[in-house]
Parts: sequence; C-alpha cells; structure tokens
Amino acid sequence: MTQHGDPAPRTTPTDGRYERGMAALAQVTGTEHPAVLDPVAEIAPDLARFTVEFGYGDVWSRPGLSPRQRQIATVAALAAMGNAAPQLRFHIGGALNVGCTRREIVETFIHATVYAGFPAALNALSAAREVFAGRPEEESGADGGDDLPSAPAGDDRYARGLETLRAVDGPAGEHVVHALDDIAPDLGRYLVEYVFGDVYARTGLDLHTRELASVAMCTALGTAAPQLRVHLRAFLRAGGTREEVVELMTQMAGYAGFPAALNGLAAAREIFAEQDAG
Amino acid sequence: MTQHGDPAPRTTPTDGRYERGMAALAQVTGTEHPAVLDPVAEIAPDLARFTVEFGYGDVWSRPGLSPRQRQIATVAALAAMGNAAPQLRFHIGGALNVGCTRREIVETFIHATVYAGFPAALNALSAAREVFAGRPEEESGADGGDDLPSAPAGDDRYARGLETLRAVDGPAGEHVVHALDDIAPDLGRYLVEYVFGDVYARTGLDLHTRELASVAMCTALGTAAPQLRVHLRAFLRAGGTREEVVELMTQMAGYAGFPAALNGLAAAREIFAEQDAG
Amino acid sequence: MTQHGDPAPRTTPTDGRYERGMAALAQVTGTEHPAVLDPVAEIAPDLARFTVEFGYGDVWSRPGLSPRQRQIATVAALAAMGNAAPQLRFHIGGALNVGCTRREIVETFIHATVYAGFPAALNALSAAREVFAGRPEEESGADGGDDLPSAPAGDDRYARGLETLRAVDGPAGEHVVHALDDIAPDLGRYLVEYVFGDVYARTGLDLHTRELASVAMCTALGTAAPQLRVHLRAFLRAGGTREEVVELMTQMAGYAGFPAALNGLAAAREIFAEQDAG
Repeated sequence: MTQHGDPAPRTTPTDGRYERGMAALAQVTGTEHPAVLDPVAEIAPDLARFTVEFGYGDVWSRPGLSPRQRQIATVAALAAMGNAAPQLRFHIGGALNVGCTRREIVETFIHATVYAGFPAALNALSAAREVFAGRPEEESGADGGDDLPSAPAGDDRYARGLETLRAVDGPAGEHVVHALDDIAPDLGRYLVEYVFGDVYARTGLDLHTRELASVAMCTALGTAAPQLRVHLRAFLRAGGTREEVVELMTQMAGYAGFPAALNGLAAAREIFAEQDAG
Repeated sequence: MTQHGDPAPRTTPTDGRYERGMAALAQVTGTEHPAVLDPVAEIAPDLARFTVEFGYGDVWSRPGLSPRQRQIATVAALAAMGNAAPQLRFHIGGALNVGCTRREIVETFIHATVYAGFPAALNALSAAREVFAGRPEEESGADGGDDLPSAPAGDDRYARGLETLRAVDGPAGEHVVHALDDIAPDLGRYLVEYVFGDVYARTGLDLHTRELASVAMCTALGTAAPQLRVHLRAFLRAGGTREEVVELMTQMAGYAGFPAALNGLAAAREIFAEQDAG
Repeated sequence: MTQHGDPAPRTTPTDGRYERGMAALAQVTGTEHPAVLDPVAEIAPDLARFTVEFGYGDVWSRPGLSPRQRQIATVAALAAMGNAAPQLRFHIGGALNVGCTRREIVETFIHATVYAGFPAALNALSAAREVFAGRPEEESGADGGDDLPSAPAGDDRYARGLETLRAVDGPAGEHVVHALDDIAPDLGRYLVEYVFGDVYARTGLDLHTRELASVAMCTALGTAAPQLRVHLRAFLRAGGTREEVVELMTQMAGYAGFPAALNGLAAAREIFAEQDAG
C-alpha cells in the first residue's frame, strides 16, 4: 500500500498539497527524497500523509515567515516543551539545512533558559551537540572558535540589563521589574541582570528573532499567559508584524496543537486591539 | 519485606482494595500475576501498593467507564502529555489486552495531532509501533492491509469538514471558525479542512470515543481551558453522559494528578449548569 | 577557549558569582572540581557559565532555603514536569549529597502522585532507583529494610484522612471536599482517603517539607492555579515563611523558567494580601 520512501496518499491528491509538502520536507531534510516518515507510514499511512500535507504542504510552505524563522520558532517551542527529543533533533538539523547557523541555534537555547528553565535549555543543547557532531563537514563557529564572543563584556550587568530592558519593552519593562519590589526584589534584580543583562543583551540573535522565539515558547508552553502578552508587544516593537504573529500561531498548531495556537491567537487579538485603541 | 511478583501491603488489607486492584491489573497486563510493579516495590513498596489499591482497586475497577474506554482515555492523555513513555507503552499493551483494536489506538494518536501537535502524536505512534511489533501473533489490520481505508475519500475537504463540524459541535462549531475571520482566516480554514475534514471525519473511532479522547487530552494538558469546554459539550452531544465525564475526570487524577482532575471537574460543573439552564 | 573541567567565563568575573557558583555546584555534586558542565561548555561556553553564575552563584547560594530544602523542591519540580530526566537524576544525587535521605526522596515522589499523577511519580522513582544503585556504599533504609514503616496503620482511611486534612488545610480543607459533593462525591472521597489518609498522613517527610514540595510542583507545572493557592496557604500554616515562599519561587525561575516563577509570585502576593486583610 505504501511505497518505500514515499508515504503515498490513499486518496488522489488533486490539490497539490502533498507535492508541495514533500518539496518543503525536502528543504528541511536537505535530501531529495525524504524517508523520515517511512516508519510512521508502516502502521499509520494517513498520519504520514497528514504530516506532509498539513504540516508541510499547508503550513510550512506559507510565505508569511521565512524557512529560517520557522525553524528557529520550531526548535524554540520543542526545546521549551521538552517532551519531543526526536523531533527537536530533526528540526535542529532542519534549521541548519535552511541556513540557520549553529550560533543562532545555540543562542536560541540560551534564550530558552529564561522561558523554560535551565534543564530544558541544557537538554536542547545536548540535542544540538549530537546533531552538530553528526555533521562534521560543516564545522563552524558555533563553538566560539572563530566567532566574536557574544557575551556582553563588562561587569555592570544591572545597568546593561536596564538599558536592554528599555529597548525591548519600552516603558512597560521597568514596570515588570518594579512590580516585584514589594515581594521579591532580588528576583526583580535577576530579571534585569540575568534575563536582560546577560541573555537579551547578547548579539547572537537579532531582537526580532529573539522575540519570535519568546512568543513561540510562551505559546507552546501554554502556561505563560501574562508573559505571552508582554512578548507579543515586544515582538511588534522589535519590528515584527501582525502577519508574522498570525503565521507563527498557525505554525504552532502543528507543533503544540490547535488549542495552543487558538489560545495564542486570542492573546494576539487582545494586543492588536490594545494597540489599535492607542 | 516484599514477595517476588507481589508488592504486598504492609497494612492488612481488609477492604479488598488490593485484591480488586490486582484483578484489574491482571486484566490490563493480560497476565495472571502482574510483576510490572516489582521494580517499584524494591525501593518504594508503598508506592507500588498505592498504585494497585488506588489506581486499579479504587478507580480502574469502577463501572462508570468500560475497560476499553479507560484505556483509550489513558493512552490519549499520556500521548498528549508526552512525558511518560514507559507508561504509554504499558497502556497501549493494556488497551490491546482489554479489546481495543490496533486501528483504534492508531486513530487515537492521529486524533492527538489536533490537541497536542504532530510531535506528540508521532512519538505516541512510535510507541505503538514498538508495542505492536512485540505482539506478532496478533498481526491485525492496523497497518491497513486488511482494513477499510478510514481516510475520507474525495477532495472537498472544506465541505466535508463543515458538515462534520456541524455534526460534532452543533451551531457553536461554526462560531469557532468564524471567530478567526478577523485575525487568522487561514487557520480557521485549516480547522475546518484538517481538524474536521481530515481527522474528525475518519471512521476508525466512533464520535463518542473520539470526544472522550479529546476531553481526556484537554484535561491532562491543563493548558486548553476553552477547548475543554467546547469538547465537554461535544462529548455530551455525541451521546456521552455526565456520569462518564465525572468518571473520566476521576481517572485523570491518577494519570495527570489531582489538580488536573479537579480543574477538569470545575469546567464540567460549568457546562452541566449551562445545560441545566437551557 | 574552555579549560577542561572548568567552563571559564569569557568576561573577567570580578563579582565572585562564578566562584560562589562553583562552590555551590561542588556541594551539589559532592566533588571538588565539578565537570558536569564540560559537555555544555564544548558548544555553548556561555550557557555553562550562566548555569554556574546565575543558577548556583546567584540563586542556589542564597540563605533563604537550606540546601536540603532546595534539593527537595528541585526534585519535586523536575518529577512533576517529567521532561528532564538527566537533571532529575543529577539532582537526586545532589539531594543525597547535601544530606537528604533516600527515604525523603522516595517520599517526595510518592507525594508527587497527587500533583502530577502516577506515571510522573513512577518515572521519578525509576530515576531514584538508578541513582541509589550507583551509590551502593551508602546503602540505607530507603528500601524499608531498617526503617519504621511510614505507611499509616489501620484501615480507617477516611477518618485518618479527614483528620490530616483538617491539620493541613484548616477549615478550608473540608470545603474542597464538599465542593465535589454535587458532581463527583467519590473523587471527594478519594481526596480524603488517598491524598490525605494515605499520602499526607505518612511520616517520611515533615509537613513543612511536604508543602514545600506541593508548592514547587504546582508552580513548576503552571497548570494548577487553584491548587497553588490552596498549598501556599497550607505551607504557611505548616510553619513555612513568606521568605521561604519567595525564595522557592526565585529558585523555580531556574528550573521551570521565569514565567513559572513570576506567575507563582503573583499567586503568593494574593495569598499574602488575603492574610494581611485578616
């Protein structure tokens, strides 16, 4: 029923979704005839077909986000969820195949410490190490060997954090910090020093992409509603567009489920309305 | 302290919970003397006992859901949570042991793409493939070899999806779709085409069971409150009873924790009240 | 760039955070020169440094919680999240290294059945078994061999549970149970019998530590808002302080991400205000 290397659809595809999906999957895998879904097709040929048609033919092929943006958002979301190691490895490879650098992938996982905690970030990093090790031919600057250091220099982490926080969040940023003065001033300080002084101040990812990753992680986790709102605003401030937001939520349907996507869109609608109201 | 193959209770069980639990566990494992908890009993004999007494003696043995319903709900929940691979494999085997078909299990995981995303569904499918491979004697139609294809035929996915959506959700369904018109019309289209045209229209699971799985997944995830309400309504529309809802939430206490169960019940109470109010 | 066994900072650390962090990490690992971050440092030296500086130098070294409390909270949170097995094993070892007993660790995971379900608890127990097996020199009473049984004796689980519930939650506890009378009286009964009669009545963890674990799990999961409020109150009733609550939330930033910590603090602020209002 299913030909080797090609989870053939049972119904005749006249709408080109399957072909478009296989072309997209070829880009992500970096191979002409992706066989990654063969084991799935063995017992669930329709699931293999849906993955190609919906995941790649409908969603991934859309023009609203570049392949690089899609792959950064996907590895960010899978890193944060922490429960899909095979797919995380697959999409780290996919990120490299569509032109993301090792440095960008590593930066995305350093960024993930903020949203999903160090264990999730460290496990994603392990996955990256494995994938990188399997591609020795493209040894690059990810290990820092031939790269500018991306860690901000100097010791005044608080001042640097505050400056970055203002750039990222505008006036609302300081509010977040001072909102902790009454109960946990040290955590407020860590927010400035670690999150903004150490992580956001890094140069390895531009702010637009960094906030794309933040929104992807908060949406996929589904447990960070207030932070999702903050970072939707920050993404738009960083030059992100509403179209990109909607596109990202659409992509999250495939990786974190439709409920996550729909709840993310509900938050986006509120932020858009807030901005329209001035 | 603990006899081989039998995590013996330290207190004398006079209430029959332990015996009832072991009988239930025997059904799920398909063996007369289940040894699955022996490694647990080595360092935590009470945890092994609680699993038998509470999980199987108190909850699993209750008459409100059939063993098949319980196992479908459990594999759906574990697939969605994505963080308990050994138990997922165990309960896939258990589902087969109480009479679920391979096809039903595979359909449950195809259904899971909607609620938990493709990575979770694909990993659950991998677990199923492993379990199926370990039971070659019962080679069945799960691979489609001798089964009716369950993928809906024809290309008019939108029309088919709309029809299914109306059958599932009643008038409220279209509201969900049109609620996206202002912000993400394409995601609204995918909801109709993929979720309802491709997945819900499939014949491999009856709608009652399909919605049982939806409610189980939304409850276990704990991040899909609006969708849990929608699917509680749909479950009741599909012939599900309030007693089954309460029973399912009770079962979720064991697999996703009491908070998940209590929050699910709070949602159920609201939906019941809404229906009583007409 | 990175010296073996020492993820050296790229910027000169003049503030002692790195040294303080390495000293803390040495306590957790029980080794003078912890090498656990070497593989991370290979491809992401800054992530290794952040882990030491922020996770151990800033947070873990703080005086507000003892090392034993921190490790119990961490293994509780990682057990509940269920998606960071390497870190769970590492921190089980760390718990033993700072003086937690095997019994306390096992009790924490029995306690986790309530908040995260049996699969999460059983997987954490498996991790504990592995870690314990790797330290045969300290064979202790965790397997019950030379320990008082901690399972409460006698069969009147409901009466015992009700008594424990009153001690833990005060008058509010019974409200929780009776709130289920209309919809799921049996689940209300299981709450009394299993959660309070079987689990909370156990002697292996003092109530203060038990509630610390409850709050850690509800905060890390991020899906148990009503229960987090209940257990913040119970933690304070059990002799826990506001300072400990704030400290715990600060620690959760590192293990479950800043959103989890900030949302936990928002709940704490409400409970503190409620108590100040009388």
